[in-house]
Amino acid sequence: MSADHPQPPPPATLPERKTLDQRNAMSELERLRHSCAHVMATAILRLWPEAQFAAGPPVENGFYYDVDLGHRITPDDFPAIEAEMKREIKANHVFEKRVVSREQAVRDAQSGRLGGLGERPGNPSRYKLGNLAEIPEGEPISYYRNGDFLDLCAGPHVGRTGNLGAFKLTAVASAYYKGDEANPQLQRIYGTAFKTRTQLEEWLRMQEEARKRDHRKIGAEMRLFILDPDYTGPGMPLWLPKGTVLVEELEKLAKETEFAAGYVRVRTPHLAKEKMYVTSGHLPYYAESMFPPMQVAEEGEPGGADGASRGAVQGDRYYLKAMNCPHHHRIFAAEPRSYRDLPLRLAEYGCCYRYEQSGELFGLMRVRSLNMNDAHIYCTEDQFADEFRAVNDMYLKYFKVFGLEKYQMRFSTHGKEGLGRKYVGEPELWLKTEAMVRRVLQDSGINYVEVANEAAFYGPKIDVQVWSAIGREFTIATNQVDFAVPARFGLVYHDRDNTDKTPLCIHRAPLGTHERFIGFLIEHYAGNFPLWLAPDQVRVLPVTEAQLEYARGIVEELRAHQVRAELEYSNDKLQGRILRAEEARVHHILVVGQREQEAGAVAVRIHGHGHQGVRPRAEVVSEILAAIRERRA
Amino acid sequence: MSADHPQPPPPATLPERKTLDQRNAMSELERLRHSCAHVMATAILRLWPEAQFAAGPPVENGFYYDVDLGHRITPDDFPAIEAEMKREIKANHVFEKRVVSREQAVRDAQSGRLGGLGERPGNPSRYKLGNLAEIPEGEPISYYRNGDFLDLCAGPHVGRTGNLGAFKLTAVASAYYKGDEANPQLQRIYGTAFKTRTQLEEWLRMQEEARKRDHRKIGAEMRLFILDPDYTGPGMPLWLPKGTVLVEELEKLAKETEFAAGYVRVRTPHLAKEKMYVTSGHLPYYAESMFPPMQVAEEGEPGGADGASRGAVQGDRYYLKAMNCPHHHRIFAAEPRSYRDLPLRLAEYGCCYRYEQSGELFGLMRVRSLNMNDAHIYCTEDQFADEFRAVNDMYLKYFKVFGLEKYQMRFSTHGKEGLGRKYVGEPELWLKTEAMVRRVLQDSGINYVEVANEAAFYGPKIDVQVWSAIGREFTIATNQVDFAVPARFGLVYHDRDNTDKTPLCIHRAPLGTHERFIGFLIEHYAGNFPLWLAPDQVRVLPVTEAQLEYARGIVEELRAHQVRAELEYSNDKLQGRILRAEEARVHHILVVGQREQEAGAVAVRIHGHGHQGVRPRAEVVSEILAAIRERRA
Repeated sequence: MSADHPQPPPPATLPERKTLDQRNAMSELERLRHSCAHVMATAILRLWPEAQFAAGPPVENGFYYDVDLGHRITPDDFPAIEAEMKREIKANHVFEKRVVSREQAVRDAQSGRLGGLGERPGNPSRYKLGNLAEIPEGEPISYYRNGDFLDLCAGPHVGRTGNLGAFKLTAVASAYYKGDEANPQLQRIYGTAFKTRTQLEEWLRMQEEARKRDHRKIGAEMRLFILDPDYTGPGMPLWLPKGTVLVEELEKLAKETEFAAGYVRVRTPHLAKEKMYVTSGHLPYYAESMFPPMQVAEEGEPGGADGASRGAVQGDRYYLKAMNCPHHHRIFAAEPRSYRDLPLRLAEYGCCYRYEQSGELFGLMRVRSLNMNDAHIYCTEDQFADEFRAVNDMYLKYFKVFGLEKYQMRFSTHGKEGLGRKYVGEPELWLKTEAMVRRVLQDSGINYVEVANEAAFYGPKIDVQVWSAIGREFTIATNQVDFAVPARFGLVYHDRDNTDKTPLCIHRAPLGTHERFIGFLIEHYAGNFPLWLAPDQVRVLPVTEAQLEYARGIVEELRAHQVRAELEYSNDKLQGRILRAEEARVHHILVVGQREQEAGAVAVRIHGHGHQGVRPRAEVVSEILAAIRERRA
Repeated sequence: MSADHPQPPPPATLPERKTLDQRNAMSELERLRHSCAHVMATAILRLWPEAQFAAGPPVENGFYYDVDLGHRITPDDFPAIEAEMKREIKANHVFEKRVVSREQAVRDAQSGRLGGLGERPGNPSRYKLGNLAEIPEGEPISYYRNGDFLDLCAGPHVGRTGNLGAFKLTAVASAYYKGDEANPQLQRIYGTAFKTRTQLEEWLRMQEEARKRDHRKIGAEMRLFILDPDYTGPGMPLWLPKGTVLVEELEKLAKETEFAAGYVRVRTPHLAKEKMYVTSGHLPYYAESMFPPMQVAEEGEPGGADGASRGAVQGDRYYLKAMNCPHHHRIFAAEPRSYRDLPLRLAEYGCCYRYEQSGELFGLMRVRSLNMNDAHIYCTEDQFADEFRAVNDMYLKYFKVFGLEKYQMRFSTHGKEGLGRKYVGEPELWLKTEAMVRRVLQDSGINYVEVANEAAFYGPKIDVQVWSAIGREFTIATNQVDFAVPARFGLVYHDRDNTDKTPLCIHRAPLGTHERFIGFLIEHYAGNFPLWLAPDQVRVLPVTEAQLEYARGIVEELRAHQVRAELEYSNDKLQGRILRAEEARVHHILVVGQREQEAGAVAVRIHGHGHQGVRPRAEVVSEILAAIRERRA
């Protein structure tokens, strides 16, 4: 890799968001939704002919159109707009395309026709004029017309307005023209559309369920985490005791799983000097996604045997780490390595910091502090296939633990044209590694799609998508193969043939980050976590004071086995205490009255499943311990 | 607490270093050592009459004298110097004190007599002139003379040179005059002295043992950690796999111990906005001990339900956290608290960052990244004594786990004069809390000393000192009571009497930081950790290939119980493999030959204890599991 050309984005263990323009072409559904946006504009103009429109694209889950209107639109206006939309659909107008000259388009915008139902003297289409100005000279300019409504639009659209299926307006928000705060503020009206009413209803039902399962809502109800933007800063969750249980149970699961798979663990600081990220290639190209540096005035008095820096360096910059790989590479480099030491699997629950734009932050799903279930596997080419297979097996194991039935791996490969520019120039290594990855995916019977020309700079990658219990898709993790960065750090192992070779490196984070994974799990389980994961595992309720000691004994027995068990006794009626425990999503509620005490038994309730009968105390205790140990669903 | 007066240093969970001048007066031993420094100067002048002396104080473990000489002194010169010193001691000269005028002193320095054996024309005592200039006008100026040697000195000294006991020169290093790099570089010659030869020899033996047990040396041999000053930065250890085992075993111990003691755990980010540390009082007074801020250009787009900051703030500074308390206080503040919620014990293994001067950094003992076994206990005044007792019990429990037989708690109380300035102005609370602490210490039979006028600003504190197996003292932890900071964060609980009250807060960190505590444990155990803590717990060595499967079965059985067990089979002779395992400090070495396999047995070796006999496999496995579970010494 030559040092004189800019590097594309560096190792990002979290997947990047897909933007619309990264997709190859507009899908059928997107075309439908795009057409629906035009129909919505038509309807709005019928109601308020002075309306001015800016952009109206399809987006994930629907479409929007930005509108400038003298008054505020609210959801109360939606039925009237929808009624006009239905009329336009019933009229079954053709979507007609026409290519025009720039002069013609400017004239039509000035007359108010563009984005209107006809000429509007004194009301020129000011946002369409702005949009026109952004179309480069020489590019074709096209209109789409449906009925009276004429719009500046590159298309494509469905054939006729009558082809539109089921639709619904969903929300209104404000947005700046072209996303620039210096521009006028517009109203963004959101809607969605599907081919059939059944699909729309299914989607609406899922949305409703997702709202109920919103991880921010449940997170607050269950006191799992808080955000403290004024003191700690936005996007950096503070885990409350019950949320910390989730974090630590996931860590425990990962540590046990990784121990069994032959990983070893390391711990590295949360910052490093500029030199680290210049070497890795993150600086300067990734700088805007990192927190700004800490500039220290001077550094490096003559050091002693403690390893302090030798020689005076005037000034130094420290950066918070945005990824763990460079630190792990330095650990690899810390001793001479032989082929006998490989594969070396270094795991760390490393906390990284990324400076996401504050407008992008979203609960636990997009944050600035990321606790990553990270590991880097250094291996030879010969070992690669086995290591990669083992990583996949680990994914499948986790899917099983969490009852994830639907998943997909998105396998991104290189594009030939980008070799040496977008992709590191190792054509044979690309083909060979991609073939190995493909074979492993096929052999394991894993559900995957292959996407050309979307690999990382330094190797092929796999994004892991899972679907929650209510059918929503989440991208939770990435696997990446890295040909390039180990060489930048001068990593070598001494091979059998007495030469030094650069190891391959697999970046992998099957549980992604605590933040996003827990956000996902909250929705997946609707906060009703399985026993091993439940913040409140057991609550013992003595009916009267006479059972207090018996109840306390059960709690102590369970707590001696690290079970999160509590006693609740108060003068409140039993029913009230049971209700409170159910509201708090306590997994096992054990009620002990006089009869239970005399029989050495407990009455078992399981959260959400009601009364399970009276059973011997010892049996219940050992079943609780087994369910936790085996991480039963 | 009024906001308009500067606060003294804020919560520092790590104890501060004691400097010599903080001690009340020169002890008998210090006087002896100080006199020995004069005798050493006398001896050096006998050998090299042109020598110029700067400062010669007693220090911890000995004394030094800074000397300017035309040539380099090396340890090879020590015998000659020591021989001259013995002559001076045999001469049994009186240490004579004389108070002189400044003019007299300047004349004697110009003539070369001060710090000399007589006048030295053309060789004035330039450092003594510099020292004289630093004595404020009006302060008495005094000389000490022994034999021909005349020195500028405030004393005190022993009566005669013959009173000096056993001494030894130990080292030579370089030092700038008055510690200022702009000044000339001098040679600092170190020595030590004791009242008796036995004491000296005991100390030398301990020094030798401490050198063998040096945590940096053993840390490198055992591959526990590295420092990477150029990339990660000085003072920030990277824990290698075997060191990470130590870290995680300590965390596990702390988590289990704290779970049993009713703590709950939280997890907080490693940084916070400036506002956090202005509120806590750390800024600006503690700023120089913190890493410099990260200045972000702009922050705070209008936030959504995800809690992003509302309202535009122009620019913001983020600081790495130097202590966990402010984050915990914000968690306390996150919900309304009632007296029923107290005591609330929030624990976190929080990683903090402090910008220690690079010259102060020392292996794991003084670092910039501190993984702290931290917790904050919020309680009412009524609960304080019980909570404080429970904290002490936890210390004693830990001492037992690590076989620490000698410890001392140093209980620092307020001084009346400092109330409202050096100490928060709550005289009754001081007296009351100190009385409670004192009573708990007495009731628990804990070995402690009480030191007046050394409390923290916000409450009494206890430094915990322990002695390693070779008798060296370490300060590993602090307990602090905090009256003041919870109020700064507006923390309140709603009390029985329907009023809001500020809770007391106990800061406690019984295991101190991973870094220092592991540094201590390495010396304490000389790297020969007990089984539960040993990075390499078990290594199974099959004698020939025929036992490979049997050996593998034992390893797998142990690993299924999370035991760190490995198989080692190679063509190397058994003795060589045993030696290698002993060198690597593997705790249990299990050798299996044909006889052992046939008998379902293993031959057990314990590191440092040799062969333990052939015993049934099942018995050995269950004993290993029990020793780990019970954390046997």
